[in-house]
Amino acid sequence: MQQLKERIVKEGKVLPGNIIKVDGFLNHRVDTLLMRDIADEFAKHFDISKITLVLTAEASGIALATVCAERYGVPMVFAKKAKSDNIEGGLFRSDIFSYTYKRQVTQLVSKEWLHKEDKVLIVDDFLANGEALRGLVEIVEQAGAELVGIGVAVEKGFQGGGDRLRQAGYDLKSLAVIERADANGIVFRDDE
Amino acid sequence: MQQLKERIVKEGKVLPGNIIKVDGFLNHRVDTLLMRDIADEFAKHFDISKITLVLTAEASGIALATVCAERYGVPMVFAKKAKSDNIEGGLFRSDIFSYTYKRQVTQLVSKEWLHKEDKVLIVDDFLANGEALRGLVEIVEQAGAELVGIGVAVEKGFQGGGDRLRQAGYDLKSLAVIERADANGIVFRDDE
Repeated sequence: MQQLKERIVKEGKVLPGNIIKVDGFLNHRVDTLLMRDIADEFAKHFDISKITLVLTAEASGIALATVCAERYGVPMVFAKKAKSDNIEGGLFRSDIFSYTYKRQVTQLVSKEWLHKEDKVLIVDDFLANGEALRGLVEIVEQAGAELVGIGVAVEKGFQGGGDRLRQAGYDLKSLAVIERADANGIVFRDDE
Repeated sequence: MQQLKERIVKEGKVLPGNIIKVDGFLNHRVDTLLMRDIADEFAKHFDISKITLVLTAEASGIALATVCAERYGVPMVFAKKAKSDNIEGGLFRSDIFSYTYKRQVTQLVSKEWLHKEDKVLIVDDFLANGEALRGLVEIVEQAGAELVGIGVAVEKGFQGGGDRLRQAGYDLKSLAVIERADANGIVFRDDE
């Protein structure tokens, strides 16, 4: 997606440790009109007409997933990180390793809000090692629901998480795949 | 807002300890079309035309704030809870007590994304003790920005957080104020 790549080049910052900051439009300050364009771009790739639910992980995936769900006319469910006392009852859960927080976290989705009849599009803003997405896929599979696909805005291709999901057979569409990011600039994987 | 009150009565659950669960449409599974109607309801109360930014707190405020910002054509910024290594540089911060997690948490907003020229609408899904909102107000004031108002979907009126903000002179609009919630049902504060 050309518009997204241009924003990454123009506004993204490359920090030591392969950290690519896009917090001016994606995950701290959120450009809601860009989110709308990203949602419409996913709709070109996935069969949106069959989706009953958009699933994401808190916190930074929620903004994009909400705009997608609103434009597709379906609800959005976000997996909660295990820490709140306010989640009760039957839960789907997946344990993932968070590279951001450098510890294991548990993702939870109430069985009340995800059913085997659901056709799910997983959406996230960022994909690096792919742990959050792997956990979401696991939750969809626990529910016996159908995973229609995985839509991601920005993928760090060189960290391998996306390719592992593709090799496992999931329909993963990332709108900007960064192959290299260093002092010399940002290089994207060629679009097919 | 009649539609919201009806959803609370129909789908809300009252748990021991004055916990009111509305996670079927507001803060776990999110009814994105209801969020749209809530955003339009806020637009009747606040002068949306002057707003440059919608501000909220992670995580459950993000969905509603995003829909509001998208419909008003402005960016959405969410305050992060202090835990991530990926936030750098100058920060506005407020320390609040989280009744959900029963500990102090720090809310952070990068100085890059909130400026004294901004005219801010704070949006949140839920207001009980009002700590998260108090912290957001503090952050807006640290930035020297103009606070246009505070829009909340569901307020637990009996916990006093909303009235404290009103008494302090802030323009707080809650679309459903719950005055009592127990085995006998849910009672709302009369609309003006």
